[in-house]
Amino acid sequence: MNEFAELAHEVLNRCDQLGLISQSPGMVDRRYLTPQHRQANDLVAQWMQQAGMQTWQDAAGNQWGRYQSHNADAKAFVFGSHLDTVPNGGKYDGMLGVIAPLAVIQFCHDQGIRFPFHIDIVGFGDEEGTRFGSTLLGSRALTGRWQETWRDLRDKDQVSLPDALKNFGSSFENISQAKLDPATLLGYLEVHIEQGPVLENQSLPVGWVTAIAGAKRYDIKVNGMAGHAGTVPMPLRQDAMTACSEMVLAIESIATEHAVVATVGRMDVKPGAVNVIPGEVAFSLDIRSEYDDMRDKALDAILLKLRDIANRRRVDLNWQMTHQANAVHCNPALSQTLAQAIELTGIKPLSLPSGAGHDAMAMDAICPVSMLFVRCKGGISHHPGESVTHADVQATLQVLQRFLDSYSQH
Amino acid sequence: MNEFAELAHEVLNRCDQLGLISQSPGMVDRRYLTPQHRQANDLVAQWMQQAGMQTWQDAAGNQWGRYQSHNADAKAFVFGSHLDTVPNGGKYDGMLGVIAPLAVIQFCHDQGIRFPFHIDIVGFGDEEGTRFGSTLLGSRALTGRWQETWRDLRDKDQVSLPDALKNFGSSFENISQAKLDPATLLGYLEVHIEQGPVLENQSLPVGWVTAIAGAKRYDIKVNGMAGHAGTVPMPLRQDAMTACSEMVLAIESIATEHAVVATVGRMDVKPGAVNVIPGEVAFSLDIRSEYDDMRDKALDAILLKLRDIANRRRVDLNWQMTHQANAVHCNPALSQTLAQAIELTGIKPLSLPSGAGHDAMAMDAICPVSMLFVRCKGGISHHPGESVTHADVQATLQVLQRFLDSYSQH
Repeated sequence: MNEFAELAHEVLNRCDQLGLISQSPGMVDRRYLTPQHRQANDLVAQWMQQAGMQTWQDAAGNQWGRYQSHNADAKAFVFGSHLDTVPNGGKYDGMLGVIAPLAVIQFCHDQGIRFPFHIDIVGFGDEEGTRFGSTLLGSRALTGRWQETWRDLRDKDQVSLPDALKNFGSSFENISQAKLDPATLLGYLEVHIEQGPVLENQSLPVGWVTAIAGAKRYDIKVNGMAGHAGTVPMPLRQDAMTACSEMVLAIESIATEHAVVATVGRMDVKPGAVNVIPGEVAFSLDIRSEYDDMRDKALDAILLKLRDIANRRRVDLNWQMTHQANAVHCNPALSQTLAQAIELTGIKPLSLPSGAGHDAMAMDAICPVSMLFVRCKGGISHHPGESVTHADVQATLQVLQRFLDSYSQH
Repeated sequence: MNEFAELAHEVLNRCDQLGLISQSPGMVDRRYLTPQHRQANDLVAQWMQQAGMQTWQDAAGNQWGRYQSHNADAKAFVFGSHLDTVPNGGKYDGMLGVIAPLAVIQFCHDQGIRFPFHIDIVGFGDEEGTRFGSTLLGSRALTGRWQETWRDLRDKDQVSLPDALKNFGSSFENISQAKLDPATLLGYLEVHIEQGPVLENQSLPVGWVTAIAGAKRYDIKVNGMAGHAGTVPMPLRQDAMTACSEMVLAIESIATEHAVVATVGRMDVKPGAVNVIPGEVAFSLDIRSEYDDMRDKALDAILLKLRDIANRRRVDLNWQMTHQANAVHCNPALSQTLAQAIELTGIKPLSLPSGAGHDAMAMDAICPVSMLFVRCKGGISHHPGESVTHADVQATLQVLQRFLDSYSQH
């Protein structure tokens, strides 16, 4: 099947073009409600129109295209992902989930294939949260979960979210116009690079997602007793650094044992001098699982063990939860259709959880969601090194086309 | 024996007075070749003169006093320590080793006691190295080990060491005038606060020092693979943070096993974000022992183990030695006389190594050295909380007087 070979090239080419729209020289950096956001929306709208889609931008700055059904009263199936990036990000995280389905609609349009439902594609304005510090602003506007308190969000230049919306030609007060009626929606499918090494490890181009992991985050602080590196014998030390090291290893082994992921990504050591025994160490804990109960069970075991270590080493231990989000499970029926489409394309239909958050988490509030992961080189994301192959994009387009084909026959 | 009760009060009072001479408001901060250094020298010189001593300042800015022997051709026994401090330091680290022997000379002067040798007391201008980044500048000038390369040393305001010496009324070119002839020296005894918890732990006011530990320092860098905290399964990670944690614990247990001290005081984690698996961690290692061979044996075992851990965890490991100083052993004869003086004062003569560096390390190049440690509260030093008791200072003065008494009878 070479029908998507050329379109796959076009997908990569369009991701390259979007990658040139950046607010910072020498890197990909495109944030919510900026002139570059507008430029990206306009370019995507143009491509949508070429594929025979009607286009509009909603009150939250999300770019939409609709591939109209024969039946004007039909419900809509939505494909989408985001068009914003982290600073110095890559060209595929988000964008691929807009541009890949768009190529499939282009194919359908060229072939004169129509569906018994509308097909909408949405490019969300904010998923990364890199401008206002709160993620999923774009998709959450669709679900009616836009928060009144976001009125006070400001970017690093002290521009408020309401002012940024106004400059973009919208308004904070009218955001509710972006809200969708769940009764008009059939489901949501998000294509996204995996951002992890599993598909590469399994030599598979794509995989279907079982669930988006729920995460909890903690700030943990350990207070021992600072001292001179030369004068305090080992048995008399209350070294916050060695205590934390034992804690990090406990976190690693308990997470592995409980089949969840846990990460200590940040560690601040005080006073931080080569010849001083650390008196205070603060570190972060991020723990995730597609199963909230498994995550919480592992977390309980970790905190119990940390308390043990602190008592044994005579250091003080304090923790504070800084973030909590529950897991979102992909819709079994949509996922089954997606898995079959993968298999029909000749690919082993591997399922895997998503450890990272995605717009699908927000969309889950208003319709059944599903996700297709695409292999990315080295599992790298949020980095200029993000990379997908032409062959994998071609496989993606084939899977999407087969998905639409079988979904429309239900 | 209450003969030193009043003098011990005077010692504490003089340390308080020196503590008021500071270049920074609200803290003790007195660095080499500053106007405050001059002020401290002048005050100490005044006290020396009151004790019947001849005073002078040498070419390196060290303050001297001599309690002249009957015999003008006699050799000199030297007491001393430093008059400089770290920023926000305490009142006893260094100063006690100048002021305590001075009180004993005051006592001898008042009682008309003379000795068959000169007794010199020196207040070194720089031990801490906080102005020019190189320690023991004062004492090293006495030993002829002043380095020509120090010409390029600059303080944080870019003032060079030669300019600072010039402003102080001396000159870099004339430093060699501060050099002492070993043939004129009998020995050196330095009184210093312990800067550790051993004496407090043993409920002893003073102890004699066996050796000043030799130290080696390393910068160690571990490179793994950064990754998304949610998307990389535990078994696929090359987490630099967990690898380093295992290394820190290995360092702790090997050091304990080998009866040396080893400290990881600094750790920098990159990228250092709550949701990113650390790809690079750099940390410091400081390892010390009074026996260089024991230290090096422990170090070999540590580096071997670190290599093992790195291989097993598939991370890169690099290290670089940044500092090396061999141990200095106190002179057995002097130490025996000191131990006997402690015992005669009614105190158990505990011996202990010094983990911290001292002027005695430099003096070892030109004469036999010995050290008397004084208990300090909580082992705290380099901190405003430095504290010694009147009773312990009184014991110190008794020990010093007994030391001089028996040393002069040899």
